[in-house]
Amino acid sequence: MNDLKQYIETNQERFLDELFSLLRIPSISSKTEHKPDMLQCAERWKELLLAAGCDFAEVHLTEGAPIVYGEKMIDPNAPTILVYGHYDVMPVEPLEMWKTPPFEPTIIDGRIYCRGANDDKGQSLMHAKAFEYLLRTHQLHCNIKFMLEGEEEVGSKSLYTFCKANKDKLKTDVIVVSDTSMIDSNTPSITVGLRGLTYLEVEVTGPNRDLHSGLFGGAVANPINILCKMVASITDEKNRITIPHFYDDVLTVSDEERALMAKAPFDVQAYKTAIDVEELCGEEGFTPIEHVGIRPSFDLCGIWGGYTGEGTKTVLPSKAYAKLSMRIVPNQDPDKISALFQKHFESIAPKCVKVKVTPHHGGNAYVSPIDMPAYKAAEKAFEQTYGKKPIPTRSGGSIPIIAGFDKILNTKSLLLGFGLEADAIHSPNESYRLDHFFKGIETIAWFYNYFSHPSLVTPH
Amino acid sequence: MNDLKQYIETNQERFLDELFSLLRIPSISSKTEHKPDMLQCAERWKELLLAAGCDFAEVHLTEGAPIVYGEKMIDPNAPTILVYGHYDVMPVEPLEMWKTPPFEPTIIDGRIYCRGANDDKGQSLMHAKAFEYLLRTHQLHCNIKFMLEGEEEVGSKSLYTFCKANKDKLKTDVIVVSDTSMIDSNTPSITVGLRGLTYLEVEVTGPNRDLHSGLFGGAVANPINILCKMVASITDEKNRITIPHFYDDVLTVSDEERALMAKAPFDVQAYKTAIDVEELCGEEGFTPIEHVGIRPSFDLCGIWGGYTGEGTKTVLPSKAYAKLSMRIVPNQDPDKISALFQKHFESIAPKCVKVKVTPHHGGNAYVSPIDMPAYKAAEKAFEQTYGKKPIPTRSGGSIPIIAGFDKILNTKSLLLGFGLEADAIHSPNESYRLDHFFKGIETIAWFYNYFSHPSLVTPH
Repeated sequence: MNDLKQYIETNQERFLDELFSLLRIPSISSKTEHKPDMLQCAERWKELLLAAGCDFAEVHLTEGAPIVYGEKMIDPNAPTILVYGHYDVMPVEPLEMWKTPPFEPTIIDGRIYCRGANDDKGQSLMHAKAFEYLLRTHQLHCNIKFMLEGEEEVGSKSLYTFCKANKDKLKTDVIVVSDTSMIDSNTPSITVGLRGLTYLEVEVTGPNRDLHSGLFGGAVANPINILCKMVASITDEKNRITIPHFYDDVLTVSDEERALMAKAPFDVQAYKTAIDVEELCGEEGFTPIEHVGIRPSFDLCGIWGGYTGEGTKTVLPSKAYAKLSMRIVPNQDPDKISALFQKHFESIAPKCVKVKVTPHHGGNAYVSPIDMPAYKAAEKAFEQTYGKKPIPTRSGGSIPIIAGFDKILNTKSLLLGFGLEADAIHSPNESYRLDHFFKGIETIAWFYNYFSHPSLVTPH
Repeated sequence: MNDLKQYIETNQERFLDELFSLLRIPSISSKTEHKPDMLQCAERWKELLLAAGCDFAEVHLTEGAPIVYGEKMIDPNAPTILVYGHYDVMPVEPLEMWKTPPFEPTIIDGRIYCRGANDDKGQSLMHAKAFEYLLRTHQLHCNIKFMLEGEEEVGSKSLYTFCKANKDKLKTDVIVVSDTSMIDSNTPSITVGLRGLTYLEVEVTGPNRDLHSGLFGGAVANPINILCKMVASITDEKNRITIPHFYDDVLTVSDEERALMAKAPFDVQAYKTAIDVEELCGEEGFTPIEHVGIRPSFDLCGIWGGYTGEGTKTVLPSKAYAKLSMRIVPNQDPDKISALFQKHFESIAPKCVKVKVTPHHGGNAYVSPIDMPAYKAAEKAFEQTYGKKPIPTRSGGSIPIIAGFDKILNTKSLLLGFGLEADAIHSPNESYRLDHFFKGIETIAWFYNYFSHPSLVTPH
């Protein structure tokens, strides 16, 4: 594989053109108006898989967004890798905070700015390019399957169905996912834990119409006032969640594992400076790494009600709304947590308002074993390209389908991510570093190589 | 004045055409895009005043919305009435809740549906029409001055300046304002108290950009969570406002006056049914009439932050905002209350966020004497047209300039309103009853008459 770096350099312009062709499609899964874009993006992925060398690729239509599947089978006895990624992206609001058009990839200072540049178009395309290199240089020694979905950001509903219906087709030794981050540019890491998620929407109704806040204010319940009181009570002064039985299923992480986590390089001052906050604000008794790695959280993702336009309007509105997510940890069940929230929220509603709770998507947390062959092969690949062993970390993010793969396909997943926190995924000005994109391709090619030749991987 | 009713009936179509010409102009004072509409509405008022019989009318340009002034001076020794009204209206959001176009007056079941139908285009035009009748039928025995502004809903800033600069021009025995409500259609009332107001906007900033709620949630302060906690703490479990020194200047209303207020007809069940709430939610120890009449209140008029679009987006947003108003009572100073709020809000902000407080407009509360000649004349006028004496009431609403008139022009105001709570002012589907419009003209004509002839008003 001496020509790997050269191959990447020679083809880098084409690789970027291919990535940009995906990035220009505004495949926002949460908005129905983007349905045609989902299909277009899936079709483009199919073309790219075939161009990279897949023998077979198809766009599978679903009730939601299409699923792209492609494969290159070289030998039924060779190891098989299934690459999972997603082509859907988050909404781009608030638009006014973007410095470049959100769907026009723009390179500035070594970074590609675009929605999806990292999450997950940039990260998943690295696999297709690593595969292409190995195939064209006759160094591919494993079977490769690609599966790309368009509903990752909204709960992967169709993919669960697809997996259940296609267990044979999806048979693999490992599932590899590039949709996570490294500790920093010089510190490779492999994500071995993901939080789960439950997402709900609440509506609080006071009077049946907007009222004059002078004529009624003080006598009639204001739904915004009440909503704020209700959600404020969901966390206490120690930043613990107050929903009864919320923590019942949370596994206690051993002091030993917590000590290990504490060894990961983490500069709290740099962390605070990067996001410009004077203080952090996590659950009492835990560190920031633990807050996002092993503890659940409660975040209001959106809130609205009343007059939000320019200037002033005195009004006692009829309704107030919030969207909220709870990140959950291994052993917590999203449906149970969702039900606990709903029951609690309804129980704390004063009689002067009516409340409606609508659960959206959810997903289980996941813990990945660090003694499986794929993990070892990945360790070796990182040593090859970064000159150092990756650190196992737990991410606060969620990829709900990963726990689903374990359950439905009985297959473990390896989270081989090349992002950085600074990439601002889900935020305005999402970006992905060019050097991470190219070094990711290199590392993935080495990973495929070592996974195909377990004898090359010496035990650590 | 035997021909008064006949005059109104004969001319009612023209009266409505004139009103509709005002209503069709979307003179929303809080939005800069409507600046041209403000001028157009002022010009239309000038035409209507001249057409009604004013000797002189002008549109006075200001830094904000224009002020319309017109007058008919019949005799320097006759009593003088200054009619104050406003031609600006509230924003019309939420648009989807309107059953008819908000700026196209539509008559349904004896009501004119349109933004401004009552507040205050409908109510103020009644004066021009009562004046027109008296003048054309040679029964006008007082001087009449009209002053209409376009910033009532946003704090009347330009009108304060105008009043200070035109004290001689505005010299009058009483200021009459039709911008309030009656108890019900058969129970005339005169508003003798208005609450004051202070309006502020707050911004809470957490991280400097929107963050992934998985990667950061639980460690980094979420500005929506914090904003909710902060505003939730502004009122306690007794629905009292917790801002230190907030109640210091509130005058205790005597048990005697409270007993008098309790005599006003008020059906709490009908009140709750009309707005479809199971329970009211006011300060402990006071009745609903007292809540809005003599007690201050704290209302969130708007709140927003994070993702508020369709579907889901997991995000830990950078900012959250709220607009809020505090209604204040006689003896509370809006600037002082505004400063107390700001100081308190900043003091309760945790270090993990930054807060910005922006005061908007404010105004003092007002109490009107019930022994002044204008009140007595109005009592007599209501007896003439409704067959019963009006009840003095306190309204929870605010017309900040009324306290300003007292201070700057040293003149008391009479609040002669013909609205109903069901008119839904400030709300979608604002309306004004046709019979109230016409009976208002009739009552106002009688009021002008009695005020011009104090000898006709026997003491009660």
